[in-house]
Amino acid sequence: MTNLFRDLPVAPLAAESIDTLLDRPGLRIERIVSTGQASPPGFWYDQPQHEWVVVLQGEARVTVETPNGARTVHLARGDSLELPAHCRHRVEATQAELPTVWLALHWPAVA
Amino acid sequence: MTNLFRDLPVAPLAAESIDTLLDRPGLRIERIVSTGQASPPGFWYDQPQHEWVVVLQGEARVTVETPNGARTVHLARGDSLELPAHCRHRVEATQAELPTVWLALHWPAVA
Repeated sequence: MTNLFRDLPVAPLAAESIDTLLDRPGLRIERIVSTGQASPPGFWYDQPQHEWVVVLQGEARVTVETPNGARTVHLARGDSLELPAHCRHRVEATQAELPTVWLALHWPAVA
Repeated sequence: MTNLFRDLPVAPLAAESIDTLLDRPGLRIERIVSTGQASPPGFWYDQPQHEWVVVLQGEARVTVETPNGARTVHLARGDSLELPAHCRHRVEATQAELPTVWLALHWPAVA
């Protein structure tokens, strides 16, 4: 995969498609393509590393746990979201008609 | 600046516009908007940290020094380029009609 917007799945997929664009000490970059997927009911991501995501095509709704309760945000093209390590989050929905293209960055939490 | 594609400069700018989207230990994320700018003749970037760039709108030509000589690459929408620490590089040209939007990631070189 050499271009972020090429080789996009055209049909609904059983699962999200994840391509690692770069994997170096200190940073992993992924392209994630969703075609209507959402996190299973009750499932929350809880990751030891920091994450930052941006939606480059399509749209999504993500719920993030905060000290003041859960907050659901809508992400359209160009919108980004910081997900610090162990910030629990889940994908509520992604657009099904047009594949939703995410760029996701992961970097280690500093002890 | 809350959305990558919003608040784009409409007129040619004297210099590139750089917005820091995230600045954390281990990662800095910038949005760079070019409106026809190029590196000055003879100027080369030579940075102590690693960099990865992707063009999200517009297009650009970048020259990278390699052990086998200089190599110029054309970057269109969705194309990315890894620039390891101290890999000398320069921007030869960016599209002038449509602002060129870059996402640039910088992370520390591990000693």
